[in-house]
Parts: sequence; structure tokens; C-alpha cells
Amino acid sequence: MPAKKKTKTSRVEARLKELGLELPRPPTPAATYIGSVRVGNLLFVGGNIGRLNGEPPKYLGKVGEAVTVDQAYEMARNCALNHLAIMKAALGSLDRVKRIVKVLGFVNGAPGFTDMPKVVNGESDLYVKLWGSRGEHARAAVGVSSLSRNAPVETEVIVEVSK
Amino acid sequence: MPAKKKTKTSRVEARLKELGLELPRPPTPAATYIGSVRVGNLLFVGGNIGRLNGEPPKYLGKVGEAVTVDQAYEMARNCALNHLAIMKAALGSLDRVKRIVKVLGFVNGAPGFTDMPKVVNGESDLYVKLWGSRGEHARAAVGVSSLSRNAPVETEVIVEVSK
Amino acid sequence: MPAKKKTKTSRVEARLKELGLELPRPPTPAATYIGSVRVGNLLFVGGNIGRLNGEPPKYLGKVGEAVTVDQAYEMARNCALNHLAIMKAALGSLDRVKRIVKVLGFVNGAPGFTDMPKVVNGESDLYVKLWGSRGEHARAAVGVSSLSRNAPVETEVIVEVSK
Repeated sequence: MPAKKKTKTSRVEARLKELGLELPRPPTPAATYIGSVRVGNLLFVGGNIGRLNGEPPKYLGKVGEAVTVDQAYEMARNCALNHLAIMKAALGSLDRVKRIVKVLGFVNGAPGFTDMPKVVNGESDLYVKLWGSRGEHARAAVGVSSLSRNAPVETEVIVEVSK
Repeated sequence: MPAKKKTKTSRVEARLKELGLELPRPPTPAATYIGSVRVGNLLFVGGNIGRLNGEPPKYLGKVGEAVTVDQAYEMARNCALNHLAIMKAALGSLDRVKRIVKVLGFVNGAPGFTDMPKVVNGESDLYVKLWGSRGEHARAAVGVSSLSRNAPVETEVIVEVSK
Repeated sequence: MPAKKKTKTSRVEARLKELGLELPRPPTPAATYIGSVRVGNLLFVGGNIGRLNGEPPKYLGKVGEAVTVDQAYEMARNCALNHLAIMKAALGSLDRVKRIVKVLGFVNGAPGFTDMPKVVNGESDLYVKLWGSRGEHARAAVGVSSLSRNAPVETEVIVEVSK
């Protein structure tokens, strides 16, 4: 008698739950592109503005004006949650993520706003909480003049995948 | 008697003609850099502002002010045409493109402009028309405060190459 | 009797000295990220604003207003110096750099400033001086509305590594 297939529990998803967070549904791209493309052991995950489960962005507007750094940090964490959902959809399990390689963060900052790093930490911190040193990544965080839907932050990420 | 070498017709270039488009000359970089660099099966193609055949950009200025979304869409498509010319110069034939991996689009938008995705679709749509699902890619599209020559859009692309 | 280990002189560092430049200490990341991540033969080096040896940036502010193009060029060269220090820390020797693949440059330009390429040349030119054609890379250079610490320029780079 064949054994029943067990649903494999993802260690990373278990850790996410411990942090009080849950995976959203993978976001639906707004145009003619897709969430991620894999080439060999690299997964290129496209830009995300942190709308969870298709709902409107929780905060809208420029950081330093309509949106605080803390709120933008939360939106960057939501970008990470969507990226995690896309990674899982692409790889089957987040346990196949070997390393977070690079994050590029674009912050819709008010004139004179220079705390882009504090905002994008919302994404970076989550990866380090989930994966420890394997979650540490190279990063750039810059201030842009506008983002889709007037979102406060948009990020993209490159991931190394286990073979 | 050895057979004559036939000029191999590129399927992708044939498709481009069906769409009423033609490959421009590969653009000449404006400074100390080059059009693309290949590492293994990845081709990194640098930023382009959609000047065809060395002519001035067809439209100049901020999208939402001097340039409409439709005009900027056309400029993004011209970025793609230049990227195609660079890919062909690097690979010998566009048929060696296995997959479009990622597009990063920078839109020179007027204050409050948020339709960056509609602009960068000018590049994305062409890749999908040329390659179908192999043309689908991860993408980010953000609004920047200025671009070289006051161009409305600049894009860069990563391509997977057949071995 | 085993021979003493000789400190291997890096050809690239020797060339740097000929140019009157010296490697700074690798910069300390300002947040929860690290200087570079290697995947196979690609080294992804994160964003840098050209602060040498932990000192404040030499020039601060928008290019075209508080900072001239020449000063911003020097800051982009300093970004390259920090990137070189990060590469050496990651690889052991700059002689293991096989190729500079791509530079992405963000210039904090005043309204209407369009000479981003001239600024980012500060990084590109140094790579070409150090490595010749192996230093030539794909590149994009765009104008952003703000940068961390109000720096005039921030750049990131992808490097191909010898096996």
C-alpha cells in the first residue's frame, strides 16, 4: 500500500508564521509581464509595490509627506511578502531559496527625503529574519519621483535557487 | 563542391517585418561603456533611450506634460528595437535569444504621473509579440526625475541566450 | 623546507597606484544588507555613494546646483573605489575580476539636469583604465529625485569573476 503523500511543511513558511505574518496570494501583474523568470540557479523577481492579495496599497503617497517612514517600512515588508509568494509560486517551496542575492529599492520620497535605507529595510529585515545570513543581500535604495499607483515604495529582487 | 553558405533568415526578424517594424543600426554608446556584455547564458543589455539610427529622440520631455503616454509607449518600443539591434550584434542572430528575462524601465514622468507601466509596455508588448511566452519577463517600471537628453523613457534588459 | 608564502602583488592594484589612487577600506553597510553577494561567476555589488573610509561624502547635494559635473564625476570614481574595495574583500584579489559586466548609476540631478552619463563616467572610466576592454561594461545612468545622505550619485555594479 503506497504511503500517502505528505504536504511538506516549509521551514521558511513556519518561520513566517512565528513572525505573525502570512503569505499573500501571488500578485497579478498589471501589464504584459510576469512575476519572475528563472535562468539556471538565478530567479529574477520583478518590481512590486506591496499590494497584498489584490487590495489597494495600504498607504499611498510620498514618504516624508503623506506616508511616514514606519508606514513605508511596512509597505517594503509587504513588497517582500509578495516577492515570497512569487518565489513560492515559481519554485514550489520557499525552502528552495538558497540565498537572497540583491534587492533594488525605489522610494517615492518627498523633496529632501533621504531615509531610503530605513524604508527598504522593511524588505531586507524580513529576509534576514527568515534566512539568517543566507538572507543577507547586496542592495541599492534610491529616491524616485513617482511610482505606479502613487505607491510609497517599489522593490525588485534577485534570488539564488537550490538545484 | 562545397555548398554555398546561405544567409540564414532569422525567424524573429521575419516576425518583426510582419509587425511593420525594422531593426535599426545598433546604437553608439554616448560614453565609456558598451551596448551589452555576455556572461555564460546571460546577456546584460545596457540602458537605451530609443533614438533610432543615431537620429534625435522622436519625442522629448516629461510624460504627462510634453509627451503623451502613447508617444512614450512608442519610445519604449524604440528602446526595444535598439535593444534588439544590440542583441543581434552580440549574438549574430536574434534566434539565439532563448528568453527575455527582465526589463527595468525608467520613465521621465511629470509630477504626479503614475502610468509608468503603460509606457514600458511599449517594450514588453513587442517582446511578447516576437517571442510569445518566451518574451514574457519580470519587470520594474519607475518614475525618475530626469533622463539623458531629456528622453521620456530609458530601459535596460537581461536576456537568456541559447548555448 | 617549505617556501614562504609570498604576498601576491595585484596587477590591478599596482595600476591603481600608477593612477595616483588607492583602495579605501571596504565601506560598512548602513543597514541590514552586505556589500556583495556572489553566485557562481557573478558578483553582485550593491549600491554605494562614494564615501571613502567612512568619512562624510566629499560633496553633497544635487548635481547642477550644489555639486558640479566634475565634482560628481569624482564622487562616481569614489563609488568605483569603494566597489573595488568590496570586490577585493569578496574575492581576495582584484586580479580575480574577469570582466566588469554592468553598472547602474543613479544621479541626484537638479531639475532639468541631463548630463547623467558624464557623471557616471567617473566610475566607467576608472574600470577601463584598470582593465582595458575587460573593464568595458553595459550601463544605464538615470536621474533620481534623492539619494541617501543627499549624495550626488549612487551606483551598483555586476562583475564576472574568474573561476
